[in-house]
Amino acid sequence: MSEQDRIPAHGDLSAEEFRARGHEVVDWIADYLQGVRDRPVLSRSRPGDLLARIPAEGPDKPEDWHTLMRQLDDVVMPGVTHWNHPRFLAYFANTASVPGILGAMIATALNPNGMLWRTSPAATELEQRVTGWVARWVGLPDEMFGMIQDTASVSSLVAIAAARQSIPDYRRDAGGASLSAPPRLYVSEQAHSSIEKAAVVLGLGQDAVVKIPTRADYSLDPVALSEAIAADRAAGRTPFCIVATLGTTSTTSVDPIAEMLTIARDQKIWLHVDAAYAGPAAMMPELRPHFDGWQHADSVVLNPHKWLFTPMCSSLLYTHHPDTVREAFSLVPEYLRSDVGATSEDTESLPPDYMNYGIQLGRPFRALTLWFVLSTYGREGLESRLRDHVEMTAELAGWIDAHPDFERLAPNPFSAVCFRYRRAAGPDTGDGVQLDSVQEDEWASDNESIMARVNAGGRAFLSHTRLRGRLTLRLAIGNLRTERDDLRVAWDEITRAAAALSV
Amino acid sequence: MSEQDRIPAHGDLSAEEFRARGHEVVDWIADYLQGVRDRPVLSRSRPGDLLARIPAEGPDKPEDWHTLMRQLDDVVMPGVTHWNHPRFLAYFANTASVPGILGAMIATALNPNGMLWRTSPAATELEQRVTGWVARWVGLPDEMFGMIQDTASVSSLVAIAAARQSIPDYRRDAGGASLSAPPRLYVSEQAHSSIEKAAVVLGLGQDAVVKIPTRADYSLDPVALSEAIAADRAAGRTPFCIVATLGTTSTTSVDPIAEMLTIARDQKIWLHVDAAYAGPAAMMPELRPHFDGWQHADSVVLNPHKWLFTPMCSSLLYTHHPDTVREAFSLVPEYLRSDVGATSEDTESLPPDYMNYGIQLGRPFRALTLWFVLSTYGREGLESRLRDHVEMTAELAGWIDAHPDFERLAPNPFSAVCFRYRRAAGPDTGDGVQLDSVQEDEWASDNESIMARVNAGGRAFLSHTRLRGRLTLRLAIGNLRTERDDLRVAWDEITRAAAALSV
Repeated sequence: MSEQDRIPAHGDLSAEEFRARGHEVVDWIADYLQGVRDRPVLSRSRPGDLLARIPAEGPDKPEDWHTLMRQLDDVVMPGVTHWNHPRFLAYFANTASVPGILGAMIATALNPNGMLWRTSPAATELEQRVTGWVARWVGLPDEMFGMIQDTASVSSLVAIAAARQSIPDYRRDAGGASLSAPPRLYVSEQAHSSIEKAAVVLGLGQDAVVKIPTRADYSLDPVALSEAIAADRAAGRTPFCIVATLGTTSTTSVDPIAEMLTIARDQKIWLHVDAAYAGPAAMMPELRPHFDGWQHADSVVLNPHKWLFTPMCSSLLYTHHPDTVREAFSLVPEYLRSDVGATSEDTESLPPDYMNYGIQLGRPFRALTLWFVLSTYGREGLESRLRDHVEMTAELAGWIDAHPDFERLAPNPFSAVCFRYRRAAGPDTGDGVQLDSVQEDEWASDNESIMARVNAGGRAFLSHTRLRGRLTLRLAIGNLRTERDDLRVAWDEITRAAAALSV
Repeated sequence: MSEQDRIPAHGDLSAEEFRARGHEVVDWIADYLQGVRDRPVLSRSRPGDLLARIPAEGPDKPEDWHTLMRQLDDVVMPGVTHWNHPRFLAYFANTASVPGILGAMIATALNPNGMLWRTSPAATELEQRVTGWVARWVGLPDEMFGMIQDTASVSSLVAIAAARQSIPDYRRDAGGASLSAPPRLYVSEQAHSSIEKAAVVLGLGQDAVVKIPTRADYSLDPVALSEAIAADRAAGRTPFCIVATLGTTSTTSVDPIAEMLTIARDQKIWLHVDAAYAGPAAMMPELRPHFDGWQHADSVVLNPHKWLFTPMCSSLLYTHHPDTVREAFSLVPEYLRSDVGATSEDTESLPPDYMNYGIQLGRPFRALTLWFVLSTYGREGLESRLRDHVEMTAELAGWIDAHPDFERLAPNPFSAVCFRYRRAAGPDTGDGVQLDSVQEDEWASDNESIMARVNAGGRAFLSHTRLRGRLTLRLAIGNLRTERDDLRVAWDEITRAAAALSV
């Protein structure tokens, strides 16, 4: 009997068919995990490679299972950039950890929509529990209401929408038109673009985002923040939100949360903390001081799908003001009223209907995946893995500092280093003066070349940023499988690419 | 060696550990799929049941694998409402189909973030292909730009944000303040709450949503739409968007798309089509006429994770104006510029960086899951399954029509029926007149009782709505595993619950 014959004309494939194919897929994944270190990190695919091999018209008839798996290997895999590679050192890495994949398999198979408590009580209550577990581990209070959103982009948008809702004259019915003065939101110039995007989406306008200068260590300057707020008040604008970033995207710098908290309280405006990347680091007592004060913030986001080894999507949003979030988002049409014909007699004491705390009505069972990850490693296991990453980062910083032709360009409080290659002064320009901008352009070009060469080599993947105008290489550790040897390989690749420049 | 000993202190569990546990999980899922029909559809969990059994403090040490799986069975599963149950007939059902689970397993394991083309070229190009496949199958033109969002809530929000962006005086920098007149958006009074939520989130205000009355069949009245737009123009407001729903949530009614298209073009305003549920039905030639005209709409949403047998999250958004969507959303910070140190020399002809077309920067490999579903069944297989559901729905409508004590309350063009129990006139009130409102209250109470009894019984799960003030039962077919016998069981449950009322 061929595979095609086994596909029934109606209904789903059988559970037995799932069993057979599922075992095959598990072996495929195990082989992938085993061999991922040997694949090029950054895909070598060229634009259109996959488009050329997958037809523009979908199949009329069922595709044979083995053909599909062969296409996966031959057509899809060459086009995958391996975020799971231990030498994925660009952006902020993520990890589909073993328990994360296992939990997600089950969550996908159950596929409940946790929009209402009753549409899957376990999804809601497990979400309460796992958000609570993480809160305690990172020093956030039980009083904060926790929820799982899909991404930090959405978590921050929800927080900023709640901040808007708390502007005294804001009325949801009238929207932005109800505001008597232009709203203003304050972030460091190093903040993530998602904050600006939230302002755009919410219709506050990109101009509503005031970018506060940073200090030498790329942390927000609280004096400049106070001045900006005062200037806006004087000009008749309405400051309504401050966003503190603990672990910025370019340098992982840490805004002065305690001082920002004082300012927010004085000004009676919402303080949102974006700790999407670095938040889990608060599990380490030695790094907790960076976070001290966030427990009093109005809202906090941290992402298990970044540095807590959980596959996408998993972003935790905590707030002291769930009522305000609900005021900003809740809309309950008749067909979602669960008190009509309720089977539980006590609808008052029900756990939350999470659909009322965000944009999406559809809510997958993300708590299950996170529960598997947290349970499998336990608090101590997670903490020691994070500490490993921080220690490896410090080692790398040491190598950079020890090298005559490289320099670090920012502190590295967590697991990322910003640095660049800076070769000795270039050829004399004739008048004995090496112009600064010419020199900077040369250095930028050198570092672009190094990055391109390393990434094309396939053994490591780095990304870049720009700090005070200087093109900067950036190496961030975040994948659970990254080991010291991987870091050494990456550093070798970088120094060899630099050496090749001078040839 | 105990399980706990096998958890290393650093790094991830091994690939071999994944293989062992993965096979166990596959068997667990296969058993679940095999037996799901025997479980109660609606969870019998009471508020707090899971909270009472999972501690508020997470584990310090690694949890033993078998303990975790036992907790899954004993604590989590009783709290799951089984959306995968063939007699989940509430709301709109979904399906974690066999190929959907398999595809999602691989997508989760690879875990790439497709924010940029280069961060996983295959994710971007496969997204182009599968959105193209579905487009052709449902009669949308190749010229429409397709993308996968997580939910229809987000797809519609993105579409409405693009509609706002196309208002001549709208400037993203200034946001809502740039509008010289209040914006207005038109939907039928039967439209999904996500449209109103989008207006709230975007800061347009809930008042910006004008709800147009419907005709006898619950479709939007185009005459009333024209009048509303004219009245708003006369009052100095700015009509900017019309939303046509093809398959509304309560009754699956179909708005007159061709007439709405004419109005939108005359008025030069954006037409968004919400076909989140019913869109896949356009694969059936006999139902295509309901959709005729949508190919010219400015944007269209349809959800594979509803009636196309794909596990959450999968919502397709198509538009003729990708540039406008990009103008509404694109923000590219330095660290995401992929032309710096690019390994491909030709960055101009690159496929899209999908992060520029929506809210979220994080984009999981949703195309892979959908590709598995579409390939495994093929166009004909999907079409015949959808037709099955429509035919089963017609059969149920026949049973209702044939029953003296039940009545249908709306047409059923797709796979849902709205109906109610209406027993013969109650006891004489003494003056010989049965007041209408008293009668309506009694009927409402009867139907609430029927729904509560059926749902508590666990053999089927129905939901309700309210149509022109009347409490209405609603039975919707959408799960791939629903068979004719399931429908008979559900109907038996309903008629028995009705019979029990008179006792």
